[in-house]
Amino acid sequence: MKVNRLHHLGIFDEDFIRGKTPMTKREVRILSLNEAKIEENSVVYDIGAGTGSLSVEAALLAPSVKVYAIEKNSEGVELIKQNAKKFNVKNIEVLNKTAPDGMDELPFADVILIGGSGGEVAKILKISLEKLKQNGRIVINTVTIETLYETIAYLKKRSEINYYFYEVAINRYFKTGKYHLKKSENPISIIVVNKK
Amino acid sequence: MKVNRLHHLGIFDEDFIRGKTPMTKREVRILSLNEAKIEENSVVYDIGAGTGSLSVEAALLAPSVKVYAIEKNSEGVELIKQNAKKFNVKNIEVLNKTAPDGMDELPFADVILIGGSGGEVAKILKISLEKLKQNGRIVINTVTIETLYETIAYLKKRSEINYYFYEVAINRYFKTGKYHLKKSENPISIIVVNKK
Amino acid sequence: MKVNRLHHLGIFDEDFIRGKTPMTKREVRILSLNEAKIEENSVVYDIGAGTGSLSVEAALLAPSVKVYAIEKNSEGVELIKQNAKKFNVKNIEVLNKTAPDGMDELPFADVILIGGSGGEVAKILKISLEKLKQNGRIVINTVTIETLYETIAYLKKRSEINYYFYEVAINRYFKTGKYHLKKSENPISIIVVNKK
Amino acid sequence: MKVNRLHHLGIFDEDFIRGKTPMTKREVRILSLNEAKIEENSVVYDIGAGTGSLSVEAALLAPSVKVYAIEKNSEGVELIKQNAKKFNVKNIEVLNKTAPDGMDELPFADVILIGGSGGEVAKILKISLEKLKQNGRIVINTVTIETLYETIAYLKKRSEINYYFYEVAINRYFKTGKYHLKKSENPISIIVVNKK
Repeated sequence: MKVNRLHHLGIFDEDFIRGKTPMTKREVRILSLNEAKIEENSVVYDIGAGTGSLSVEAALLAPSVKVYAIEKNSEGVELIKQNAKKFNVKNIEVLNKTAPDGMDELPFADVILIGGSGGEVAKILKISLEKLKQNGRIVINTVTIETLYETIAYLKKRSEINYYFYEVAINRYFKTGKYHLKKSENPISIIVVNKK
Repeated sequence: MKVNRLHHLGIFDEDFIRGKTPMTKREVRILSLNEAKIEENSVVYDIGAGTGSLSVEAALLAPSVKVYAIEKNSEGVELIKQNAKKFNVKNIEVLNKTAPDGMDELPFADVILIGGSGGEVAKILKISLEKLKQNGRIVINTVTIETLYETIAYLKKRSEINYYFYEVAINRYFKTGKYHLKKSENPISIIVVNKK
Repeated sequence: MKVNRLHHLGIFDEDFIRGKTPMTKREVRILSLNEAKIEENSVVYDIGAGTGSLSVEAALLAPSVKVYAIEKNSEGVELIKQNAKKFNVKNIEVLNKTAPDGMDELPFADVILIGGSGGEVAKILKISLEKLKQNGRIVINTVTIETLYETIAYLKKRSEINYYFYEVAINRYFKTGKYHLKKSENPISIIVVNKK
Repeated sequence: MKVNRLHHLGIFDEDFIRGKTPMTKREVRILSLNEAKIEENSVVYDIGAGTGSLSVEAALLAPSVKVYAIEKNSEGVELIKQNAKKFNVKNIEVLNKTAPDGMDELPFADVILIGGSGGEVAKILKISLEKLKQNGRIVINTVTIETLYETIAYLKKRSEINYYFYEVAINRYFKTGKYHLKKSENPISIIVVNKK
């Protein structure tokens, strides 16, 4: 039985159906999902799931993984369903809710991915820490200075966790004629929380 | 008499007339023109002048500065003239040529700015070093790996110069709602050459 | 009369006397002082002056500029004096104080540079805005997420100002053997405030 | 049977025995090994293996993976052996050779990791493409402008491959007192080659 299928991480961005919904870029997905350390039977929340790119890659790691994708926009919900179908994963359940709404009823989590928090990151972190199993992990991606600060300010106050964080900047080379131009993706911060 | 008018560096990008011509971004212009050390009566070439943003800022430093803007595209030539008019500088002469064509006839230079080289950077550097006065400076901006390498490969072979180079990445914060998103400008390499 | 001596910006870092005091790097100094738009007779505060590198470059722009360097560490105070002497500038007055202490007695400012705030950035900004002349500018450099956030959180609440901010990352190439290694300076945020 | 053990990627840098040998940083290892798409029974070369950090993480993915670590410095060879022992992996064979020496005798490869090329990247790439199985992958990490350019210049000439490349910059936050300072790792380029 093939389990954690390493080679499934890193689907190319253009292979997802996306519309105009912003999307976690490939390299950030790879790094975030590695930090998440998803295993057989892991329960994963994907909060602010957007296009579902993280959900799909998490679900592909093993059929026994169970992903709950929470997304407030119905357009996003539709994209997640389309991408799940495209990549043929059955283990994603989509909730059209605004987190932290909907988190209460879910089973306890091994991994919580937070890609969008709609300005409510402290509230979402509070409930996330309640729902997270011991030794579970929260991985937060953020592109704004405010969410980064509010996340760290909240984490500083909690003693039952460890955390570290870093920013990732990817500069891609694109061929134009004989030359390769360097173009930057917007930098993203990855915050990794471990519940002791 | 007002001379090197420091406060004129750093015109905002949106204040230039640009069409779809690529343009040296504000912070890179500030850094490049500082490296250039333009003085009263300096003769300046701006090769691959594009929209003329570097030419205009150089010309604004002092009326006694003389800028020769070389640009192969007639669309660019038109933009340079429009920007010179908009910023009311009379000390830019525009040459609609493909460098190194046209460089031969110009007076010897104190400063040579190279923003575009059309795949001929080694040829342009060769003539630039011939036309450059002793203690003169060449400042090259490039966004491609090939031009950067070819520039350095050429400079390594010349003993009459010193050079150093670095890459600049600017990440701007933009307000969206209550939050500030971080967006990256494409990184640019600045190469500074001093003729001994 | 030579005034804003553009070519004095960009002293190389190794030319300053520094000890182990952290120092604003060359390119950040160039960008920050351009944002500052120092003119003849400008009154400049340099808060958290460190080695005095910004003070010295500001003072060199014109003898009529008056720089007040505020630095809490006596070691820093000594370095500022040594660097002022080395670069032969007489127009820096050093105050061995912990800002905002000492700011009250100073003449009104055209430009306030904030390089270090000792955890009191909101207090320093409050007094800075009181001491700043109309159309004056504050330029803040910061390397911590907390100071960046606290600065922006404070500025958001003030209606008499405009501001913008960005992060600068400099990657230098160093020669090792035949090759050039790329090494990163730590990224620095520059916040520019204009009092309407 | 557990196979590709996803959760083993991303060993912390300080957990490797390293001496003063330079080392591929954690996030670059994660990204590079994801690009490598190592599977059960994969034959992997790690060229310029340094401390063996890539070799160890590759070997940990499955006992059936076979890693050949080629390293010219005997100090490096010793570190690789120590790290293999520390992480209890038996599937690394260390060759104290200067690549491309030693590559000829190895079995054909599914994956070739190139972390150091000692100025011979074109030669190493030539033999790598000969030794690489169809659909195999080469993943190159480089920190110098010269190796990046020479790699791309060589790859451009080969029609039997596809490739893409990007640069990764990681900025870590470190706690100092109440604050988090941002510190940059040196940027690294990752070049991914697929043999059609």
